[in-house]
Amino acid sequence: MFGFQYYTPTKVVFGRGAEARTAELIREFGGSKVLIHYGGGSVIRSGLLKRVTDLLEENGISYLTLGGAVPNPRLKLVYEGIELCKREGVDFLLAVGGGSAIDSAKAIGYGVTNEGDVWDFYDYRRKAKACLPLGVIVTIAATGSEMSDSSVITREEGLVKRGYSSDYGRPKFAIMDPELTMTLPDYQTACGCTDILMHTLERYFTNGGNMEMTDALAEGLLRTVIKNALILKADPMNYDARAEVMWAGSLSHNGLTGCGNDGGDWMTHKLEHELGGLFDVAHGAGLAALWGSWARYVYQNCLPRFRRFAVNVMDVPVEGTDEEIALKGIRALEDFFRRMNMPTNLRELGITATEEDLRTMAHKCAVGVGGAKGSARVLNEEDMLAIYRASR
Amino acid sequence: MFGFQYYTPTKVVFGRGAEARTAELIREFGGSKVLIHYGGGSVIRSGLLKRVTDLLEENGISYLTLGGAVPNPRLKLVYEGIELCKREGVDFLLAVGGGSAIDSAKAIGYGVTNEGDVWDFYDYRRKAKACLPLGVIVTIAATGSEMSDSSVITREEGLVKRGYSSDYGRPKFAIMDPELTMTLPDYQTACGCTDILMHTLERYFTNGGNMEMTDALAEGLLRTVIKNALILKADPMNYDARAEVMWAGSLSHNGLTGCGNDGGDWMTHKLEHELGGLFDVAHGAGLAALWGSWARYVYQNCLPRFRRFAVNVMDVPVEGTDEEIALKGIRALEDFFRRMNMPTNLRELGITATEEDLRTMAHKCAVGVGGAKGSARVLNEEDMLAIYRASR
Repeated sequence: MFGFQYYTPTKVVFGRGAEARTAELIREFGGSKVLIHYGGGSVIRSGLLKRVTDLLEENGISYLTLGGAVPNPRLKLVYEGIELCKREGVDFLLAVGGGSAIDSAKAIGYGVTNEGDVWDFYDYRRKAKACLPLGVIVTIAATGSEMSDSSVITREEGLVKRGYSSDYGRPKFAIMDPELTMTLPDYQTACGCTDILMHTLERYFTNGGNMEMTDALAEGLLRTVIKNALILKADPMNYDARAEVMWAGSLSHNGLTGCGNDGGDWMTHKLEHELGGLFDVAHGAGLAALWGSWARYVYQNCLPRFRRFAVNVMDVPVEGTDEEIALKGIRALEDFFRRMNMPTNLRELGITATEEDLRTMAHKCAVGVGGAKGSARVLNEEDMLAIYRASR
Repeated sequence: MFGFQYYTPTKVVFGRGAEARTAELIREFGGSKVLIHYGGGSVIRSGLLKRVTDLLEENGISYLTLGGAVPNPRLKLVYEGIELCKREGVDFLLAVGGGSAIDSAKAIGYGVTNEGDVWDFYDYRRKAKACLPLGVIVTIAATGSEMSDSSVITREEGLVKRGYSSDYGRPKFAIMDPELTMTLPDYQTACGCTDILMHTLERYFTNGGNMEMTDALAEGLLRTVIKNALILKADPMNYDARAEVMWAGSLSHNGLTGCGNDGGDWMTHKLEHELGGLFDVAHGAGLAALWGSWARYVYQNCLPRFRRFAVNVMDVPVEGTDEEIALKGIRALEDFFRRMNMPTNLRELGITATEEDLRTMAHKCAVGVGGAKGSARVLNEEDMLAIYRASR
């Protein structure tokens, strides 16, 4: 077991109609001039954006809006947001949407409060020393960015997708109303559930420092998400299942399910980041398409954890060798992905990747992680290429 | 499922030697003149207090000390601390110890930053609007006060023990080094483990709003504490078991294991508060002495939860009626208490309570909760008396 720091200062307001408290929460955290940052038209069509701006107007809080955050959010819009905030004297950011809007807002917040090019942080050259205060209204359960320290931005030039983590970027508040997620297309719900599972799985498959307390929470979370994802597939308007998945999404990436271990593996995420950068796929689907190939490549190096996962999470009977049990667990999660109409390889993801594409991704991934990385198994460029190949 | 707010801004620094970061953390949260508040002589004898004051001196942070916080911490010392802080211009509190020192420090913090008598808050007459910033070095895993919003103070006059909860009182940071708890007497370790279990059990046995995600975390936490408490009974110097219990202690009372439900039951705590006020018993032992009698009195009114507890936490086989399973679960937890040398009734707690004592406690408890309270079963004064009688 390793020492750890756990810091999740985000005030969560969870439940039906929670967005009614937006103005009160912005005031509580000192906001007076707000940039509302969002993605596409869904928050306009649903009426959510109008409800929020009405609330701010009623409460005398001035605001600007900036839409257009896309999945794998782009650096260009971040620069635009930074300029806008500086020009207009914005002192609070409100992201309305999912991980794209939240991550983009975090990057804007770093850019406004730190000198120089914000991309430096994502390029691992410098560390941020501040961030504009940020509040969030979550509209999809997925990235957990509403409580996490991380954000992921894609630079258009060379399609480079990079994540940056800093406690400064943790939102001041997160408003979570499960009803806001009820109208999501099934595919997006499934992608979100996959991302949620992966945030805990990346922390779970490690070779160091595991803690019973953390494992118990992680396994409980994984079982809850799998169960409720299947409920939502049959019954997308089920409030309780929406709520279970939504709260799990925050807990899965706020640090709770990794306390005491070596920091986690994270290579499925790293491999997916290159896929997302090059082909612009939905993050959750990309993770599902790669996970099985990653798991089969590494499980023998991390057998006790894969066995435990199979038994405690996927209900695999304790019969046969550890290796057999572990492989059944991997298969069971892939079966779950298929039931959720998630891809389990690149072909099912709709991507025809050439050998050159795979080499490009493996090379960029290796450079991105500084040569080699991983805990379940340390992967170098050759290993990465082998996993990409296996996932075709 | 109900809506909820979850807010745990405390920065946790966990692991061997974590106390080395004390000065850095005090600075991070703006402290320059510190009152170090502690309990008895154990932090002096262990050398911890000296290590901490050396650190502050090396870092140019001025400080005062105030010892003497006792189990069921007293109002008189709180008043003394408030006067001292005001006189000396203290701007940061550092509690070194367990729940007694932390709760006492919270009360001092309310008293320094709010007008009027601090007891008003504990007497439910007013709400605090601020608290001095507070950091904590935890030396016993028990109350979870290091991340919680609550503190419990006893007024000497009439021996009235009351709790007050406010987000203002949540510590800014909590330093948790499991090694600091290794030298605790077995009895105190057992009392602490009982208190930890009870903070989640009070939230678990409810008749409203249960959430799968929360139940999964709660059950995982309960199993982890029970398992590791038994390890510590045989092997008190086991670092990993100390760490498991310590981290569980914080998570058990920071709100995590109650998200989505009706707020919990809390009547075992309320009944114990009167016991602790009148007889000054160790809080954890008092809870163990009362829980079985409470559980047998209420379980039929909350049968699905007691059944679930029996199966998912206490590993009771699914055989017989729900009632039989529930009763086996209650018995199993009492058996655990006995294995930990915890009392399961007042006699084993070493208390000879007269009928008049019981009536006095039941009356004070009923007044304290405003007549009647509870979720597993709503208890009035008569019910409280019946439970006290059954616990003799």
